[in-house]
Amino acid sequence: MALRGCLRVGPGLLRAAGPRGPPARGTCAGGRVSGGGEGPGSQPASLPRAGKGALSRLSPALALQPPSFGFLFDVDGVLVRGSQAVPAARLAFQRLADSSGRLRVPVVFLTNAGNCLRSAKARELSQALGLQVSPEQVILSHSPLRLFSQFHHKCMLVAGQGPVEENAQNLGFKHVVTIEALRKAYPLLDMVDQSRRPRELPPPTTGFPTIEGVILFGEPVRWETSLQLIIDVLLSNGNPGAELQDIPYPHLPVLACNMDLLWMAEAKMPRFGHGTFLLCLENIYKKVTGRELKYEALIGKPSTVTYRYAEYLVKEQAEKRGWKSPIQRLYAVGDNPMSDVYGANLYNNYLKSAQQNQVQAGLKRNPQAASEDHLELRKDCNSSVESCESILVCTGVYRHSTDVPSKREERATETVFHGHRDFCFDPSLVEASYIVQDVNDAVQLAFEKENWS
Amino acid sequence: MALRGCLRVGPGLLRAAGPRGPPARGTCAGGRVSGGGEGPGSQPASLPRAGKGALSRLSPALALQPPSFGFLFDVDGVLVRGSQAVPAARLAFQRLADSSGRLRVPVVFLTNAGNCLRSAKARELSQALGLQVSPEQVILSHSPLRLFSQFHHKCMLVAGQGPVEENAQNLGFKHVVTIEALRKAYPLLDMVDQSRRPRELPPPTTGFPTIEGVILFGEPVRWETSLQLIIDVLLSNGNPGAELQDIPYPHLPVLACNMDLLWMAEAKMPRFGHGTFLLCLENIYKKVTGRELKYEALIGKPSTVTYRYAEYLVKEQAEKRGWKSPIQRLYAVGDNPMSDVYGANLYNNYLKSAQQNQVQAGLKRNPQAASEDHLELRKDCNSSVESCESILVCTGVYRHSTDVPSKREERATETVFHGHRDFCFDPSLVEASYIVQDVNDAVQLAFEKENWS
Repeated sequence: MALRGCLRVGPGLLRAAGPRGPPARGTCAGGRVSGGGEGPGSQPASLPRAGKGALSRLSPALALQPPSFGFLFDVDGVLVRGSQAVPAARLAFQRLADSSGRLRVPVVFLTNAGNCLRSAKARELSQALGLQVSPEQVILSHSPLRLFSQFHHKCMLVAGQGPVEENAQNLGFKHVVTIEALRKAYPLLDMVDQSRRPRELPPPTTGFPTIEGVILFGEPVRWETSLQLIIDVLLSNGNPGAELQDIPYPHLPVLACNMDLLWMAEAKMPRFGHGTFLLCLENIYKKVTGRELKYEALIGKPSTVTYRYAEYLVKEQAEKRGWKSPIQRLYAVGDNPMSDVYGANLYNNYLKSAQQNQVQAGLKRNPQAASEDHLELRKDCNSSVESCESILVCTGVYRHSTDVPSKREERATETVFHGHRDFCFDPSLVEASYIVQDVNDAVQLAFEKENWS
Repeated sequence: MALRGCLRVGPGLLRAAGPRGPPARGTCAGGRVSGGGEGPGSQPASLPRAGKGALSRLSPALALQPPSFGFLFDVDGVLVRGSQAVPAARLAFQRLADSSGRLRVPVVFLTNAGNCLRSAKARELSQALGLQVSPEQVILSHSPLRLFSQFHHKCMLVAGQGPVEENAQNLGFKHVVTIEALRKAYPLLDMVDQSRRPRELPPPTTGFPTIEGVILFGEPVRWETSLQLIIDVLLSNGNPGAELQDIPYPHLPVLACNMDLLWMAEAKMPRFGHGTFLLCLENIYKKVTGRELKYEALIGKPSTVTYRYAEYLVKEQAEKRGWKSPIQRLYAVGDNPMSDVYGANLYNNYLKSAQQNQVQAGLKRNPQAASEDHLELRKDCNSSVESCESILVCTGVYRHSTDVPSKREERATETVFHGHRDFCFDPSLVEASYIVQDVNDAVQLAFEKENWS
């Protein structure tokens, strides 16, 4: 199966605008758990009505047939919190693995983390879950950048922390400049930290390459430095030592990975994610220039291209294991309504829309319909997946309320949109198909739905 | 002269909203220099018409009488750029000083810098200008905080860099917690920098005091740390280790000093100032909570309380020198239209309004008029100052254009508002009374207007 062939992506999708039509989630009514179950160890009082009904009609049986479904697991707030494993995670993976520790269904770890290598994340997960996770099972927020070959030969400024250069090179980028290298080349730009300012006027910078684009891998350290230098690069068209002339617009292409505003670590309140850094960058650019910062691509959850990539990896696993049943259903388990639930629902809509287009294409060749579908499904791809169901857990960012908020303040908080600026807020997209207490319950629920044990 | 008595400030002014009525700058028509004079060493082609007319009517004479005017000099972009003195600054101070190096007119250095002590800034200026500057001549952005005695006994979180604690203590704050101390007390909060995350789960924090307010002195280093911890404190009502309950609103009081978005150092493009940090904080708070971050006070230029304080210091100097003429006119020399010009014009409006109220008060006691005037002038203050004229120089942030912008993009850039969110954009407030090339020309202009040599 050729990845590039499967993932022909149009620019509209890569810029990751919100959904273009009403959501098509009629098959799986979602809802929030109401009443009880607030404590960390307690179970939710009830499953959504549709879910309960569906489950009551199924009688679990031994799984002799190959799986026709797969899991997409978020990591932070679902399997781990900071460096600590969530207790239910080990139980879930005992359920998922056979007696020899091999997974019985395809599993992809779909995280918006990006300041690390896939191999490092796989090692972390192996340790936390007590079974072998391979790098090929891990999708980091930047993983789909390998598809952006039009930038692979350009001189790209990269921001983030950890092995940013190595990540960029692994993804195919040949000519990369780090924030630190840019800072050293132009010592007069980074002036916030008084102790790092140059003591003497440095000689003019010569011979430094012109930057042609920016990749935002993840939240950097010293935000003031990255924010200043990225703004300088955008305002100067890639030559930040030059005198400010007319501000170029559209500005140089910006590719951003991971737009999560918040994530859940060990602290009791959520922590800033890369989305918070992007929010700062967008607002500074807008304040200084009066114009909107535009992204050439916004990838990672909830963007559809990331889920498309996850589907590809799920199928690849099934193929490698020799499981012949086509994968028909995906279960996306996450703790963040704006990232995991929104992304799964958006992808589910995409799948429904793609199926409809395929049917229409079979009846009549309609080029207009094809161009509206930004992520084209090639004939050589096995487009067997029919649905992507969202399962929200309560061990991370999301905590379900016990009752309807009574105070005005609480209602205001409930309706605050934590998604990215470029994703429209559609309340139905943050409604999970199911809400359960933890990842072990999520796996149990999916197994029951699949009549699997 | 009792400072506290002179500076009775109402909360409306301290929150530093924009002007409440149309500007009253009829006496001094302002205008931008048009044509020529773009190069760094060149002179502006012409002064505004009113200025030229006024000058032509005056014949300079030897100054035997004591001065009835004073100067407010901005520092960065006017007297220095980064660590380098602007060449015209020494010439200007040769003009201002007598043969023994003593100033012949009152001079206050009115800078929005805040990450230093007044004594350190005075030493820097002494070195750059070649004459003795005393700390009493320096107003840093936070200097008016000594008036906020209602917070002096509260537990205040302080953000900034340099001698933040010492500054707070010098200003009268008795109970101060730094960002670093808060970070150490709650090691799970600051999670952006992977290398600084705790390796093991720390014991719960006990005994740390509840924060009762926040002072933002100036731009800190590691913005992500300060942004996260300040947001945590506001969301938790001062107990950032606690579980997130209802978000308190109004939140704890926030006092912010220096709202300059940009400032001019040695680099060819402007650098981020504390206003850029505030912009990030405001937008993160808004995104996370859905509500506006409110300031209990926004001080430093262009807030009126800062100019009121400057007027007080100018008069104090004149008194100490034994100059008997009342100070009637202030000349505010700066490079930043949104800070120096806006502030001087706003203060000029305030002076006109105060004069009018005094006249009205003489005719009839009107309590309503007095309550509208947020900065009350006491009888024991010498309210002699009639005007505050803004003189814009071209050695810093502002560069005057040679002609009317022809392209649409340029026009858009010209109209971008770089002022703070809480100050309304009134185009007349950013129009300087005069535009000159540098600070030496500014002093010469004022001397000619005052018939002084």
